[in-house]
Amino acid sequence: MKLNIALLAGDGIGPEVIDQAVKVCDAVAKKFSHEINWKPALTGAAAIDAVGEPYPDETHETCISSDAVLFGAIGHPRFDNDPSAKVRPEQGLLKMRQKLGLFANVRPTFTFPSLIDKSPLKRERIEGTDLVFLRELTGGIYFGKRGREDNGDTAYDTCTYTRAEIQRLAKKGFELAMKRSKKLCCVDKANVLESSRLWRETVQEMAKDYPEVSVSYEFVDAVAMRLVQWPNDYDVLITENMFGDILTDEASVISGSMGLMPSASVGESIGLYEPIHGSYPQAAGKDIANPLATILSAAMLFDDLNLAEEAETIRNIVNASLAEGVVTEDLAEGGKSYKTSEVGDWLAARV
Amino acid sequence: MKLNIALLAGDGIGPEVIDQAVKVCDAVAKKFSHEINWKPALTGAAAIDAVGEPYPDETHETCISSDAVLFGAIGHPRFDNDPSAKVRPEQGLLKMRQKLGLFANVRPTFTFPSLIDKSPLKRERIEGTDLVFLRELTGGIYFGKRGREDNGDTAYDTCTYTRAEIQRLAKKGFELAMKRSKKLCCVDKANVLESSRLWRETVQEMAKDYPEVSVSYEFVDAVAMRLVQWPNDYDVLITENMFGDILTDEASVISGSMGLMPSASVGESIGLYEPIHGSYPQAAGKDIANPLATILSAAMLFDDLNLAEEAETIRNIVNASLAEGVVTEDLAEGGKSYKTSEVGDWLAARV
Ligand SMILES: CC(C)[C@H](C(=O)O)[C@@H](O)C(=O)O
Ligand SMILES: CC(C)[C@H](C(=O)O)[C@@H](O)C(=O)O
Repeated sequence: MKLNIALLAGDGIGPEVIDQAVKVCDAVAKKFSHEINWKPALTGAAAIDAVGEPYPDETHETCISSDAVLFGAIGHPRFDNDPSAKVRPEQGLLKMRQKLGLFANVRPTFTFPSLIDKSPLKRERIEGTDLVFLRELTGGIYFGKRGREDNGDTAYDTCTYTRAEIQRLAKKGFELAMKRSKKLCCVDKANVLESSRLWRETVQEMAKDYPEVSVSYEFVDAVAMRLVQWPNDYDVLITENMFGDILTDEASVISGSMGLMPSASVGESIGLYEPIHGSYPQAAGKDIANPLATILSAAMLFDDLNLAEEAETIRNIVNASLAEGVVTEDLAEGGKSYKTSEVGDWLAARV
Repeated sequence: MKLNIALLAGDGIGPEVIDQAVKVCDAVAKKFSHEINWKPALTGAAAIDAVGEPYPDETHETCISSDAVLFGAIGHPRFDNDPSAKVRPEQGLLKMRQKLGLFANVRPTFTFPSLIDKSPLKRERIEGTDLVFLRELTGGIYFGKRGREDNGDTAYDTCTYTRAEIQRLAKKGFELAMKRSKKLCCVDKANVLESSRLWRETVQEMAKDYPEVSVSYEFVDAVAMRLVQWPNDYDVLITENMFGDILTDEASVISGSMGLMPSASVGESIGLYEPIHGSYPQAAGKDIANPLATILSAAMLFDDLNLAEEAETIRNIVNASLAEGVVTEDLAEGGKSYKTSEVGDWLAARV
């Protein structure tokens, strides 16, 4: 198979971790006789510096002419405390999500047996946790009308959802639930928000078509509690954009392996795969960042291209590296640690 | 001192836990030679059943002619999966907050040394945690314009904030920080929302008047993570209504003693004091509910009326009951447990 993969390394540690994913993917391609054509493109602060735009048109062209996008991380501290900056890396991210139609952010949270004691949560609470959030990613308050009135003294944002937007996200949720444990939780705030009432109404309607799936409806505040009390109670969760932003980050803490958590953003056609961690500027250029989240994101990429064996190969070597202690300093617990590039080399050689 | 306190017992276990708080407050009043005139009034599902309205005008009259309001809990399962019900208990809550001008919800999270191992979080992460959220309670997406369009297929909610609304909440935050460790965290989503940018801008402006307070600005998703990773990093946090709803509930899990956490909702004049737990209908009428959160809420009430010694007396006897194991079944760990009313009697007798 010939694959075109757009490569958006981005900022901070992005380029370093992406490099390792490329090594591993190339090794996997070789083993399974695929050919990967990597197509690098600019994004984030790096793109602002180069062309004044965080998601340039050329980058978009590169993405839509590819089979998938592998993404590193974006963000630079110089933008962080300047909410009024005209051009910000995040805008590129939002524009990219919208233009690529990436309406569903898929965020698994699972535990690695060998790392379970790194969690801030007690072992007995999290053993066996394996849940997936589907966060709506191109609607809601992120993309509604916003502005100022009264000479800037009043500010507003609008959260809007259409039934169709909810349906296409929920459909992915039901389908995923059918492949897993047939348990779906719809997270909303239907006791207050009209948009949440439309979510609940729409999901209740769709539930009739999936009689095998047991659906629960929970308020976002209750889920924010239960998620850290009894994460095992959950399997597939669907929710709107803003709630998803908060809850997926909360959930990422559960496993204690936040630096290892992958994600996918998918839509009608192309998918984008990225680690959930940020650009971690303090570590940039030091060859110390953990590349595993990016590499596991590449596994999700292969999965979505129906290359399940390739995906499984990646997950197996990642597990092997953890078991054998071939890890970056964040996981070394005072023992021997490896450089980012050394971990990448080891994994690629193992494929 | 003569005190008029409105007594809104509400639904489920509300009446039972309120009864114990009344016993304890009466004992405290006697000890310190105050006289409390309790003024019961209807609210929640109980009020809907009686007069068709969750926050009737008579109840409002009772509240505004009192020095403070002691509140139990509201909510009944028959409304839970019916988002379209015309009259819901929550509407009473929102109306009450608005009509009483309760713009700041004060939610402390702290640990009880004797209960610390009940937390889902590891001891070393939470030892010494003592933080307070100030959640804006009468603005934002809870009270903005909402509705449907396109024959019901599009729903929207509006999040609006004015500079004045932010200032009065933030002022309480800065003042509280000055009395505590002079550390304030403003939680927002200024990288996306215009209302959040107004929050950040307003707080940055006000920070100049409190040069001793060290202020940090963090995104809501980052706080949702760090709160369960390193709760000790936080002291006073201020945030808007919806984020506060989610994060205060998340924070309540930290201590492992959610059933014991009190809260206050305050404004320009009258304050309302209530446990953070819900109406827990399964336990209603069984004399098994834990009354301590309501009793600790009464302590916050005395504090706000500048009766610090009275408040301290309550907290001390609560600690004594925990130390001596005079607790309801939720805390009994298989040991001897006491009825709700027995715990109330014991505490009142100890005052
Ligand atoms: C950077 C920011 C705009 C973004 C979001 O809120 O969606 C990030 O938090 C994420 O979750 O990918
Ligand atoms: C019942 C509901 C409307 C309410 C809220 O969201 O404010 C509750 O969750 C709370 O936090 O007091």
